Amino acid sequence: MPTATPTPRPGGRSARVLADVVAATLAEVSEKPYDQLTVDAVANRSGIHKATLYRRWGGMDGLIAQALTTSAEQPWPIPDTGSVDEDVRLLAHEVYATFTDPELRTTPTALIAAALRSPRGAEALHAFFAARHRQAAEVAVRGVERGELPSGADPVELVRAATAPLYHRLFLTGEPLDEPAATRAAAAALLAARAGLFSPEPQDNSPSPQPR
Amino acid sequence: MPTATPTPRPGGRSARVLADVVAATLAEVSEKPYDQLTVDAVANRSGIHKATLYRRWGGMDGLIAQALTTSAEQPWPIPDTGSVDEDVRLLAHEVYATFTDPELRTTPTALIAAALRSPRGAEALHAFFAARHRQAAEVAVRGVERGELPSGADPVELVRAATAPLYHRLFLTGEPLDEPAATRAAAAALLAARAGLFSPEPQDNSPSPQPR
Repeated sequence: MPTATPTPRPGGRSARVLADVVAATLAEVSEKPYDQLTVDAVANRSGIHKATLYRRWGGMDGLIAQALTTSAEQPWPIPDTGSVDEDVRLLAHEVYATFTDPELRTTPTALIAAALRSPRGAEALHAFFAARHRQAAEVAVRGVERGELPSGADPVELVRAATAPLYHRLFLTGEPLDEPAATRAAAAALLAARAGLFSPEPQDNSPSPQPR
Repeated sequence: MPTATPTPRPGGRSARVLADVVAATLAEVSEKPYDQLTVDAVANRSGIHKATLYRRWGGMDGLIAQALTTSAEQPWPIPDTGSVDEDVRLLAHEVYATFTDPELRTTPTALIAAALRSPRGAEALHAFFAARHRQAAEVAVRGVERGELPSGADPVELVRAATAPLYHRLFLTGEPLDEPAATRAAAAALLAARAGLFSPEPQDNSPSPQPR
């Protein structure tokens, strides 16, 4: 059925321009230090005229923001093993694998680092994380439905807790990220969820000390 | 007693230059967007000649790195209440308070954001976090000594876990940071430590699901 406002078809010119521009931006971001990125190089690489890039995206920061926005829209595999413990472990391990595998890591690492270097990029990064959290929260929703987690547990908070320590190491503290760190982050997030920390009325009192 | 290699006295010219330059850098970073920061403005503000700044710090990224290095060396109050639960809660709440109080937040927020915008700044930021983690780990060391935590618990890992979710919100996801989030992060870190997740032989198997 035709819709009132025509939207660009997936194969249309506008979609092709967008795909070419994003691919060229990702390639540039992956290959060059931030300070050497230029709209000219993205224009050359994509075959799209520089004036078009400036008009539509404003500059390099806008191109980086677009690359993140497009990445956030890509579907990515959310684990669905039937066990929330395994799903959350797999989520954390996917972050670990993506950002430590020598081949996989280059583009997303460079893209996030580049996004942190402009206010417009940072804004797109916030939207990117919000989208990822929303998508991945599905594993916690299913865990609650299966009765593996307390019924009030905030699904986004579980995902955030399971992945925050990994991004913290990768992009803020620069500490090495290893597989046990991913396992720990997932296990700690599940423990917290089961203790009711992510439920609507959080226990504001910390657990009482248990001397050993 | 005189030492073999003379070191600058705290009140010496070199220390005064350093203090003036760091103060001027912090003021500039707090007041202006990153792209408007200039060595010229730091020179004017500090009264130190521009050529000296370039020679010693290389440029704005070096000045920002210096400001972080100097900040990392400042002693800061590590809670010591006699209870590891309360100390860890206070640590997380200090991060929360520092980065959400309208007056306190400006300088550290701008400094970390600025550090993320150059490789040299990022390196200084890594050293800054490493120093803070080392200092704060004291609360976990005391908790282990008092028998409140398992004897093998990694003190730095506890501090990291209690604060990572806060920095993650502040500098990566842009999600709002509220007091309950700080309370949750501290409580979750303590739960994980007590479950043995931060001990030398981490339980690689996640806890088995407990259907409710």
